[in-house]
Amino acid sequence: MNTEKLELLYEGKAKRIYKTNEPNILLVSYKDSATAFNGVKKEEITGKGRLNNEISTLIFEKLTANNIENHFVKRLSETEQLVKSVTIIPLEVVVRNVVAGSLSKRIGIEEGTEIKNPLVEFYYKDDELGDPLLTEDHIALLEVATPEQVATLKTLARKVNDVLKAHFQACDVRLIDFKLEFGITEDGNIILADEVSPDTCRLWDINTNEKFDKDVFRRDIGSLTDAYEVILTRLGGQSTCTK
Amino acid sequence: MNTEKLELLYEGKAKRIYKTNEPNILLVSYKDSATAFNGVKKEEITGKGRLNNEISTLIFEKLTANNIENHFVKRLSETEQLVKSVTIIPLEVVVRNVVAGSLSKRIGIEEGTEIKNPLVEFYYKDDELGDPLLTEDHIALLEVATPEQVATLKTLARKVNDVLKAHFQACDVRLIDFKLEFGITEDGNIILADEVSPDTCRLWDINTNEKFDKDVFRRDIGSLTDAYEVILTRLGGQSTCTK
Ligand SMILES: Nc1ncnc2c1ncn2[C@@H]1O[C@H](COP(=O)(O)OP(=O)(O)O)[C@@H](O)[C@H]1O
Ligand SMILES: Nc1ncnc2c1ncn2[C@@H]1O[C@H](COP(=O)(O)OP(=O)(O)O)[C@@H](O)[C@H]1O
Ligand SMILES: [Mg+2]
Ligand SMILES: [Mg+2]
Repeated sequence: MNTEKLELLYEGKAKRIYKTNEPNILLVSYKDSATAFNGVKKEEITGKGRLNNEISTLIFEKLTANNIENHFVKRLSETEQLVKSVTIIPLEVVVRNVVAGSLSKRIGIEEGTEIKNPLVEFYYKDDELGDPLLTEDHIALLEVATPEQVATLKTLARKVNDVLKAHFQACDVRLIDFKLEFGITEDGNIILADEVSPDTCRLWDINTNEKFDKDVFRRDIGSLTDAYEVILTRLGGQSTCTK
Repeated sequence: MNTEKLELLYEGKAKRIYKTNEPNILLVSYKDSATAFNGVKKEEITGKGRLNNEISTLIFEKLTANNIENHFVKRLSETEQLVKSVTIIPLEVVVRNVVAGSLSKRIGIEEGTEIKNPLVEFYYKDDELGDPLLTEDHIALLEVATPEQVATLKTLARKVNDVLKAHFQACDVRLIDFKLEFGITEDGNIILADEVSPDTCRLWDINTNEKFDKDVFRRDIGSLTDAYEVILTRLGGQSTCTK
């Protein structure tokens, strides 16, 4: 049976989500748009959608192999994948192994400083409010997740980190930090959703600390697709360099 | 024995701290300066120093009577008090009973919304970083307090809230939120320090929600000293209205 792509349900900054003819299955189409700073910086970058679809596929497959439940069903085409439909919990769950980016600015610790116990932060997924940092008390007040769900998110996020940190290290990449989104399935389970890609991770070369992630775009320090190609190749994926 | 005021140790935005001839005793002199938005808005307001010294005195006495250890020793003059010297923990501990100010902006809940379980937040006392909100993981990473100390701060802050909320209510004032600073004494105890005044609390009339706190200055909605006089009078203090 072939899965049919039906109407567009939602268009976000990085992906389009389509209905399909299968119940509880969505089609995710990765876009070539790059955005940063809550959409203020924006550019079309040919090839980015394909790279993120390929990399996300490899990472979700790795997580599945390690018994971490996630929404990935299968890769459909260069830029498309099928996923389980979930109700997204509006929290960006950030795990950090090394101080970088907004954390460095917030607390005044130099980018690159190792964090002994990986740190889990929650940001409210709300573009209008600028995705603010939340404490667990804020989450309870907003009623976006129960304390038990928050505990589950932390446990799952740390598990994802354990698997991905080791996997990237084996590919000569340092996993600095990353953002996850979780959702609730029809049967009430919390599973990993959205994407895991160089758009949502900070990935540095293990020897030189060269950046292979969206900071290349945020900070204008080179070709974004060249950087993402490095990650795809190191993860063992099929790079189709167009140059 | 008279306590002698010796050299100026530290000048902050709201107070000057002097050494005294007594070991571990400091003299706090409340200034007439009003500042807001990390010092960006600034004004001299005659009488403010006296009002905050008087109000802080009454509140520290109330807390002492309720067995909440604090740095207050005695009121010395209209604008001065003696306190125990402590090593300040660089955290602003904020307790909230009602959504207001920065919390309302951060999480998009309307000012005035009741909070069922009083919320305790920690901000890093660092003017250069703009006093950022911290999670408990950030506090551990910064090593400004141990997890045990953080737990103690929360317990103490909630106790202060229980006492002050009831006390203000008996004076027809709603305690919306407030900021505390704690310090460590020579013998290693954590005690309440700094000040508790309309500069550091949000205080609304119990019937009309009229504001009697620093928001009058922040938002330019009336005479700051008139508002603080109301609080002093309601707390049973000696108002010396100069009009
Ligand atoms: N399995 C899923 N089911 C439903 N929604 C999902 C799933 N995975 C991701 N989403 C949502 O799809 C939307 C589109 O993604 P994206 O373009 O990254 O959006 P955004 O602009 O919010 O970052 C997001 O709101 C994301 O949370
Ligand atoms: N008992 C105390 N011992 C030592 N320092 C104190 C004590 N109480 C308050 N302080 C500190 O005195 C300084 C002056 O207060 P203030 O003018 O309010 O400063 P700021 O500009 O930091 O708000 C602050 O750094 C405060 O933390
Ligand atoms: Mg997204
Ligand atoms: Mg102060």
